[in-house]
Amino acid sequence: MMRYQKLVQEILEKAKPAGGLHSVVWVACGGSNGGFYAAHYFLTRESKTLNSQMMTSNEFNLAPPACCGENCLVVLCSMRGTPETCRAAHTASSMGAQTVALYVQESDLTLYSDHAIPYESIAEDASRAENVNSSIALDLAAELLAAAEGYAHLDKMEEAFSMLDDIYRDACEYCVPRAEEFAGECSRDKVIYVMGSGPSMGSAYIFSICNLMEMQWVHSPTVNCGEFFHGPFETLDRTLPVFLLLSEGRTRPMDERALEFLRKYGQRIYVLDAKELGINRIADQVNEYFNHLLFSPVLNNVYLRRLAETRKHPYTHRRYMWKVAY
Amino acid sequence: MMRYQKLVQEILEKAKPAGGLHSVVWVACGGSNGGFYAAHYFLTRESKTLNSQMMTSNEFNLAPPACCGENCLVVLCSMRGTPETCRAAHTASSMGAQTVALYVQESDLTLYSDHAIPYESIAEDASRAENVNSSIALDLAAELLAAAEGYAHLDKMEEAFSMLDDIYRDACEYCVPRAEEFAGECSRDKVIYVMGSGPSMGSAYIFSICNLMEMQWVHSPTVNCGEFFHGPFETLDRTLPVFLLLSEGRTRPMDERALEFLRKYGQRIYVLDAKELGINRIADQVNEYFNHLLFSPVLNNVYLRRLAETRKHPYTHRRYMWKVAY
Repeated sequence: MMRYQKLVQEILEKAKPAGGLHSVVWVACGGSNGGFYAAHYFLTRESKTLNSQMMTSNEFNLAPPACCGENCLVVLCSMRGTPETCRAAHTASSMGAQTVALYVQESDLTLYSDHAIPYESIAEDASRAENVNSSIALDLAAELLAAAEGYAHLDKMEEAFSMLDDIYRDACEYCVPRAEEFAGECSRDKVIYVMGSGPSMGSAYIFSICNLMEMQWVHSPTVNCGEFFHGPFETLDRTLPVFLLLSEGRTRPMDERALEFLRKYGQRIYVLDAKELGINRIADQVNEYFNHLLFSPVLNNVYLRRLAETRKHPYTHRRYMWKVAY
Repeated sequence: MMRYQKLVQEILEKAKPAGGLHSVVWVACGGSNGGFYAAHYFLTRESKTLNSQMMTSNEFNLAPPACCGENCLVVLCSMRGTPETCRAAHTASSMGAQTVALYVQESDLTLYSDHAIPYESIAEDASRAENVNSSIALDLAAELLAAAEGYAHLDKMEEAFSMLDDIYRDACEYCVPRAEEFAGECSRDKVIYVMGSGPSMGSAYIFSICNLMEMQWVHSPTVNCGEFFHGPFETLDRTLPVFLLLSEGRTRPMDERALEFLRKYGQRIYVLDAKELGINRIADQVNEYFNHLLFSPVLNNVYLRRLAETRKHPYTHRRYMWKVAY
């Protein structure tokens, strides 16, 4: 696809007089923040020269990273113009950084940013998987890396994006009975853990804070499978529901180790396995980076919806968000 | 103090033929991992040239960052030689990075690392605050930055380390009645949220996963105050206990905003305010970086101990850790 080739060239060109692009900072709030994890994970694992950081918008506004300046690209994301993120575009520009905004509705964010890329909301059935915010960010990161430093697998990456929506639609269908089982068995729980590792930490975080906490009022610690054995596992017993994202790729052994323990000492373990979602239709060289891009929409559009039904808690219900001052 | 001047010179000297030091990766598990947050936060906020990343040991082993090589310093930490962290020292070396190990007991970790620095366990009353792992990591980061790039406030930083233990001892005494109130009111809760922002996210994480989850078997989501309004706040009601770390420094307005909301819609809000702990005895230019160094030992040695008493759950009790295979 190479849909950001021109944009990337422009960004690199503009950074040249200052000595080139040295860093990328991903800035957003909540689900949009978590949505950047796939791109951030990709850059940290593939780039020898670009420093990648991600943070919530107000941390960026109040205590911006020192790398933010003429050698830096700040990528922001907000569906409708979250005030903290609009302000972050302004913060970034005032420090000399270039800015790209990902958006659904135009707002001060698109107004304040150097470049703006529209995306399709993950929650809409009609949205194509390669056009949601996390996909666009990952694609942008890959094209940026290819142009700035070289990236041997850009073609595989682009091929993957062109197949992604097909894989995602099949995965949704495949998951319906699994999601119904999960939703049926967790219809009354007040606490549900979400676990994952490596490329899936963003999807795990979003499932916890947006789907379970925000939309179902369920307490949901997010636990890294590697960290599990260094504290959190002590809370496990046969009554605790744990939802584990089993990633494809290099960190899969971390997930498998946690799963073995969970199955031995727990009894209510729910697994979403990227292998079952068809991720191996994507080339081995890059499929690790697509875990998030399958997990997140499947969790939001299949699992959350079933859970909302069994819990009789419509996922659109809020008590504070958009209703009171904060 | 400048206690790492010689070590830092050696590290920078050794990186010179490869073009100098470009990155620092902080690698450990659980509380040791969280303990690196203060140093990581400092480097991201103060260094224009050093890329700082932190991750749990097995993510480093299985999917190491691409920056890891001859231009990279990997700092590892384990009290007694956590297997994943020992392996990480080996991973780092095999990729050409220099390694520094922070340790209490000698192990394969000290054997595999280029340099080793002993530290004093946070849990021992006799340990001095400037000698625990998080302090050593922050000091090392500051001296590294000063030597590699320049850092205007190293003298203030060193002065702060020389005062830290006094401030910490006073803070412990000050907190006893506050901790007793918290422990008395949370003696039966199954869920306790921990919140913080910016420089305190490491202490918030450690309080959640080590003190509450591991040592008290309490479910404990860790929530960034800036992220709170983008999901997690929907779970708040008047029965939910929330423990908030109110930091001194630039991100304090984020904590204050969350606190205002928590007090309006919640009723069981517990605050640990760095200002009350005496952090302003440290110079304004650097005190932000010391929030973690006061919060973590106070939480571990004052709050946890009181909570263990009221919950009748000795903080040394484990059901899995060191008892079963994992």
